[in-house]
Amino acid sequence: MKILITGGTGFIGKQVADQLLRTGTVALEGDAPRPISKLVLFDPFPGEHVWTDPRVEVVAGDIADPQTVERVAESVEIVWHLAAVVSSAAEADFDLGMQTNLSGLTNLLETLRAIGTRPRVVNASSYAVFGGELPHTVTDATALSPKTSYGTQKAIGELLVADYSRKGFIDGRNLRLPTIAIRPGKPNKAASTFVSSIIREPLRRLPAVCPARPDTLVFVSSPRSACEAMLRAMNLSDRSIGPERTIPLPGLTVSIAEMVAVLERVAGPEAPQYIEWKPDPQIQRIIDSWPLRVDASRARALGFATDRNFEEIVRAHIEDEAVPRWWRK
Amino acid sequence: MKILITGGTGFIGKQVADQLLRTGTVALEGDAPRPISKLVLFDPFPGEHVWTDPRVEVVAGDIADPQTVERVAESVEIVWHLAAVVSSAAEADFDLGMQTNLSGLTNLLETLRAIGTRPRVVNASSYAVFGGELPHTVTDATALSPKTSYGTQKAIGELLVADYSRKGFIDGRNLRLPTIAIRPGKPNKAASTFVSSIIREPLRRLPAVCPARPDTLVFVSSPRSACEAMLRAMNLSDRSIGPERTIPLPGLTVSIAEMVAVLERVAGPEAPQYIEWKPDPQIQRIIDSWPLRVDASRARALGFATDRNFEEIVRAHIEDEAVPRWWRK
Repeated sequence: MKILITGGTGFIGKQVADQLLRTGTVALEGDAPRPISKLVLFDPFPGEHVWTDPRVEVVAGDIADPQTVERVAESVEIVWHLAAVVSSAAEADFDLGMQTNLSGLTNLLETLRAIGTRPRVVNASSYAVFGGELPHTVTDATALSPKTSYGTQKAIGELLVADYSRKGFIDGRNLRLPTIAIRPGKPNKAASTFVSSIIREPLRRLPAVCPARPDTLVFVSSPRSACEAMLRAMNLSDRSIGPERTIPLPGLTVSIAEMVAVLERVAGPEAPQYIEWKPDPQIQRIIDSWPLRVDASRARALGFATDRNFEEIVRAHIEDEAVPRWWRK
Repeated sequence: MKILITGGTGFIGKQVADQLLRTGTVALEGDAPRPISKLVLFDPFPGEHVWTDPRVEVVAGDIADPQTVERVAESVEIVWHLAAVVSSAAEADFDLGMQTNLSGLTNLLETLRAIGTRPRVVNASSYAVFGGELPHTVTDATALSPKTSYGTQKAIGELLVADYSRKGFIDGRNLRLPTIAIRPGKPNKAASTFVSSIIREPLRRLPAVCPARPDTLVFVSSPRSACEAMLRAMNLSDRSIGPERTIPLPGLTVSIAEMVAVLERVAGPEAPQYIEWKPDPQIQRIIDSWPLRVDASRARALGFATDRNFEEIVRAHIEDEAVPRWWRK
């Protein structure tokens, strides 16, 4: 079985790839496990990580280019579509966002349709499909109302994947993801990148900038939960998914102040001092436009779990990323 | 002032054009009336109608072709985007629907953005953006859930027009239209075309086919109301519209049986005998997937009116289309 991960060298792509290689097989609901013969990680920025596993092929390229995508998608059975220009980048460069997030997706969908075997596709969407004046709690039935170009492009992606699935061209499912925290690695151009930085950097005695007010609420999910959700969304049968192709995921609502309090509880009073509070109205505006509380009942019914509390997320990050414990106790 | 109507030789396009030429000016909310210097009717099928008004230019062409659209959109200030591959046609030919309804729209939007003067755009959308299991009454806050490719493409159009407006590239507004009945002229490839045929043809002692059950509910608006809404949506200022760029229009909920009863009341007992009842599960499925009852409170607050009852719609059709009254009384 050949698998393709677009954005495959990004951090979620890597985690999904690692998990797949560890298991070595894919067990789709209702089917016997089947071995993975090839895993293509397709990304415009392949990064420095060296993959020694012979099943892995890293391909650098542009997802909006038909020839390239035709080559990487050839005879593929399973696709995770994680490639995206993130929120602040898509807001700053409209054309770049449209090119990758819209033309890239339509190019991928047309290529998969042409294969003719109805490949299974997990498409990463985002709660940025919501914005503006929202109900107190966003539910599975809340109307899309993006207030960023990134959110608009993600909403369009959900619609296209649903229609290509309804037409039988692919077997797609959209995962609507919360802000992922704590992301490993370096800050990116997502407006939400600071949600990870303000914990990740102080845990390493490095400076971090917080552009949002302490009372700002964010809706988050850990990398572990996100990776688990990626695999679960793939495993679920067509029948379990049903005609509605979007699965809005559960997450945790937490304030920036609570996050910093957890940082202090875990790593001591020195840690929060690495945070520089530097309000940025542009970032604050984007963050404030996203949902704060979510009732993800459909996902819960389908078995998608979430993190219990933010402290658990911080402790998992320390464990997964082997953060040296410089603080006492 | 130069005006462009895409799908301009279609029946709503024609009605809007006639109205504009009669008035001769455009009075945008808050501005003094300005004369119309040029009115471009752009359509792949220019039809047989001869326009004698020197302000009118009919251009035949493909909306997905950048050079053509650049030419017709040059220095335009106002655009009605009515061109579309309709529901059954977009369902039967997926590529054609995507080409016109998605690539055509993005081509138009990019061309208008390049003009740099933020043209005002009224984009025709449809209640086909809803489908499947819907609440008893669809409101302004009901989540998009298209179950046809046409509905998917219309939903994407709403999102794109909203984002291009938010970015300041255009000043757009989406009108979400009910099924228009009674359409003059001939049946088209909309799944809903019979909703007009079963009244229009018997009024002319011509046969019509009804593919839906008599108890089927439809949500309709008259051509007069639709044309009025098109003009009102254009006239409203940016400020009246606000950040939410979609205006779901009010309409009438009526059953096919009630429509036929009105036909009999207006044109006598002979008229309904011209209807052949011939169930078509494919059409029934599409029609059943659309909303039945709508609470369009935002549109009503903005002054959009609707028809009082179906009999008024039938009588207006007879008057507007000068239908010869062959029936007694």
